Amino acid sequence: MKKNLLLSALFLSSMGFSALAQEKVDQAAMQKIREEGLNHSQVMETAFYLTDVAGPRLSGSPGLKRAQTWAVDKLKSWGFSNVKLEPWGKFGKGWEVQKNYAAITVPYYHAIIAVPKAWTPGTNGPIKGDVVLLKADTVTDLAQYKGKLAGKIVIYDTQATLASGTQPDFKRYTDEQLTEMANATAQPNGQRPGSGGNPQMATMMAARRRAMAMRGAINTFLKGENVALVLSQARGTDGTVFTTNGASYADTAKAVAPELETSGEDYLRIVRLLKAGQKVQMEADVKTQFFTDDENGYNVIAEIPGTDKKLKDQVVMLGGHFDSWHGATGATDNAAGSAVMIEALRILKASGLKPKRTIRLALWSSEEQGLFGSRNYVANHYGNVKDGYKPEQAKVSAYYNLDNGTGKIRGVYLQGNEAIGPIFKAWLEPLKDLGATTVTIRNTGSTDHVSFDGVGIPGFQFIQDSMDYGTRTHHSNQDTYDRLVADDLKEAATVVAAFVYNSSERPDMLPRKEAPKPAGTN
Amino acid sequence: MKKNLLLSALFLSSMGFSALAQEKVDQAAMQKIREEGLNHSQVMETAFYLTDVAGPRLSGSPGLKRAQTWAVDKLKSWGFSNVKLEPWGKFGKGWEVQKNYAAITVPYYHAIIAVPKAWTPGTNGPIKGDVVLLKADTVTDLAQYKGKLAGKIVIYDTQATLASGTQPDFKRYTDEQLTEMANATAQPNGQRPGSGGNPQMATMMAARRRAMAMRGAINTFLKGENVALVLSQARGTDGTVFTTNGASYADTAKAVAPELETSGEDYLRIVRLLKAGQKVQMEADVKTQFFTDDENGYNVIAEIPGTDKKLKDQVVMLGGHFDSWHGATGATDNAAGSAVMIEALRILKASGLKPKRTIRLALWSSEEQGLFGSRNYVANHYGNVKDGYKPEQAKVSAYYNLDNGTGKIRGVYLQGNEAIGPIFKAWLEPLKDLGATTVTIRNTGSTDHVSFDGVGIPGFQFIQDSMDYGTRTHHSNQDTYDRLVADDLKEAATVVAAFVYNSSERPDMLPRKEAPKPAGTN
Repeated sequence: MKKNLLLSALFLSSMGFSALAQEKVDQAAMQKIREEGLNHSQVMETAFYLTDVAGPRLSGSPGLKRAQTWAVDKLKSWGFSNVKLEPWGKFGKGWEVQKNYAAITVPYYHAIIAVPKAWTPGTNGPIKGDVVLLKADTVTDLAQYKGKLAGKIVIYDTQATLASGTQPDFKRYTDEQLTEMANATAQPNGQRPGSGGNPQMATMMAARRRAMAMRGAINTFLKGENVALVLSQARGTDGTVFTTNGASYADTAKAVAPELETSGEDYLRIVRLLKAGQKVQMEADVKTQFFTDDENGYNVIAEIPGTDKKLKDQVVMLGGHFDSWHGATGATDNAAGSAVMIEALRILKASGLKPKRTIRLALWSSEEQGLFGSRNYVANHYGNVKDGYKPEQAKVSAYYNLDNGTGKIRGVYLQGNEAIGPIFKAWLEPLKDLGATTVTIRNTGSTDHVSFDGVGIPGFQFIQDSMDYGTRTHHSNQDTYDRLVADDLKEAATVVAAFVYNSSERPDMLPRKEAPKPAGTN
Repeated sequence: MKKNLLLSALFLSSMGFSALAQEKVDQAAMQKIREEGLNHSQVMETAFYLTDVAGPRLSGSPGLKRAQTWAVDKLKSWGFSNVKLEPWGKFGKGWEVQKNYAAITVPYYHAIIAVPKAWTPGTNGPIKGDVVLLKADTVTDLAQYKGKLAGKIVIYDTQATLASGTQPDFKRYTDEQLTEMANATAQPNGQRPGSGGNPQMATMMAARRRAMAMRGAINTFLKGENVALVLSQARGTDGTVFTTNGASYADTAKAVAPELETSGEDYLRIVRLLKAGQKVQMEADVKTQFFTDDENGYNVIAEIPGTDKKLKDQVVMLGGHFDSWHGATGATDNAAGSAVMIEALRILKASGLKPKRTIRLALWSSEEQGLFGSRNYVANHYGNVKDGYKPEQAKVSAYYNLDNGTGKIRGVYLQGNEAIGPIFKAWLEPLKDLGATTVTIRNTGSTDHVSFDGVGIPGFQFIQDSMDYGTRTHHSNQDTYDRLVADDLKEAATVVAAFVYNSSERPDMLPRKEAPKPAGTN
């Protein structure tokens, strides 16, 4: 397989110009899209409502419902068709923070920066107690704490120190990096070099599974001991706290103790004091609320119906996940992508263009827990490998996704689909001045286009400048509207609108990779 | 004056080698100091007690008293002489934070990152109320709010946005920067180029005075209106909050409303919501405590008595300020400098050296409010320009200060004292491998050596790598032990011990600049 792919990569690059010449782009339409997207943008206003106004949008939470309601109302007011909240199946419990206070009180007062782990309980009112350092590398080590932790605040021992900011938080792709991506060659099974079948990776994953199992055993022990509160160290420095979940959203989730993900500085101060034999006391008042009135998950759907009699049953999709983590307002993850996709739809309508194929926006939920919104939408509408594909699977030309932060679109991942290379190159031509230049054969993962790719529907994520996604915003308490870069989002919406429009107009649907074969077929 | 200085600078650099040759350095003593300072350091343990254990060390606060008591006990336990807490005069009220909680409750719950401004009152128990956006460029603009703010939480309007971290937080001097400093020539009155008599600077200072006066008028108005709480935007991003004071420590200070210096992200979110017409409510519970039982300020003093009959009445001083701001534990400002100076004293004793002159450590208080500890110490012991100098003024060879963060010592500012250039160059020779290489004729200000320089006693601050002092730590809620760089502090203590020892041993006291003339003299 590898040899064939290499050969066709060589063939493609030698035929580059003629392929570009074959793919027709409606330059007048491109101009209309650019005019609306770059000079009449509403993307920042949309982003404001998704972040500052709606608040955190954890799956199943009131914040997500506020944002979904706003989006449905807004999309209806803009005159889109088939606007709806579409249930995709059962998710689990909703959850939100309703009070979050914790402070050191001995040896002196200091309020700490910390965020409750998602789906953990609160403290059931104000608590006060000694902080105890838990040193346990194995389950056996826990025995020494048996009967000693009731009402205590427990902190895990660590050897960690905090990194210095010797690199800028904020990064864009360099020309060299983009060239390297553009020149990459296809890998067997679409893998990136070194990303799979790697013994080192397998060892790391095994170590991680052991650590997770150990943490699960400790959680059960601490809950059984009736501790008042658990502190775990958050990734991040300088007041930035990256958040995770401390329990499952499932009805069947095991009970756990209240747990605060604590800023590195506050966490390590407490650990150092305890290790030096200093007494540390804390007070806290954490209230979290679970919601079980409706445990279904929902996606927001809206359409521009196709206008071509023969092509309107075919669909071009665009979307991004609408849910976020809970420490801030999920601005870069993924209000940015959601606002861009909403804006792309708005641009297409406001430009007065009449797309031939039907264009469908989907704003997914529960991406953060495992791409559930998109996976279930795909299963419900297009089938799956296990049970076979539905006829609609054959009618989706492409799905375009945005979920890598606020950064400018610099191009697109082909997801191993070489035949699309010349087409996307032609589409990027009139967008190159916006910095969108690069087509790479490479895959990218970890977001909702994977759900489409998995059933043979061409699904794409754009290449985006990483900005401060890894250093400051991705799942953190600092992922706020302030991090959104207006020009980058305007340009992204313009690029996406152009790709979607081009997909809707070309005579044929986009070429597909060979689809994963449903069970029982050859 | 400038021409003479330039000529002598040229002269100095041409005579470089012979000057080095003239200044004798006891290499065996240097080796002892290096062995103790680099291989048996206790500087990080000292820093741990000054930060994590003592807590914030705001002037007059219980935290500063804890640190002072610890230092006196520790210095006594190490066998130093004349160890004492020496009062320098009246400071004013002590103050500390005893509870700090604030959160947005409408449109959704979100606990904010904020720090009470120093010397502001608390909320007198939990409060809850609407947040009101105050738009006032002039005192006249305040009239519209008359009678409308009682019980409200007030936030100031702003056009600010947050900067992106396109530069690393963390910086060290480059070789080029150090060379540029070494090659600098003396300026009239010892000023740095462009730092004085600059019309742009004068305009900026006038604008700042107007803004301060306006803020004072607003504070009085808000207090009169009986607002529940004021939010002001802190400098800083990503959860980092730089702190200031919101009222004076003086007995005569005007009453003000409770005020929280609020993280940029939380502040701007509230402002954006209010500007868009969204209702915002908050709850808060802030308790601060004033202390008036002892309003005196104190410095910590300790000595190694001189051993040479003729020279022991002469003194070499070293020190740094011991007080900090209140948002964290003042690790880089200035537990670092204090721990290094304590360590330098310890190194000298532990090395078994017997300095000829008396060596005196001073850990100042109230530097942050105007170098009060050092200025008053100097006035009490050495006199001042207004009332004339005391005989002891003539017996202090030099004062060495450290107060520019955790960064490695890269050399020393001559503070315009050219005659010392060749001496310090000779002293740096055996320390160059530690990165301490540069002697610059330049001044640096804003810390306690200025108090000595002002009465004609040679006072010096070392050149230090800035690290993340400006970006993250200086006066911030993130100035914690985590920011201390152990190797840099060990090396700094070694360099300081060497300078102090060399000062104590040379036949003559260090050459002086012409002293500022006391009033009534010619």
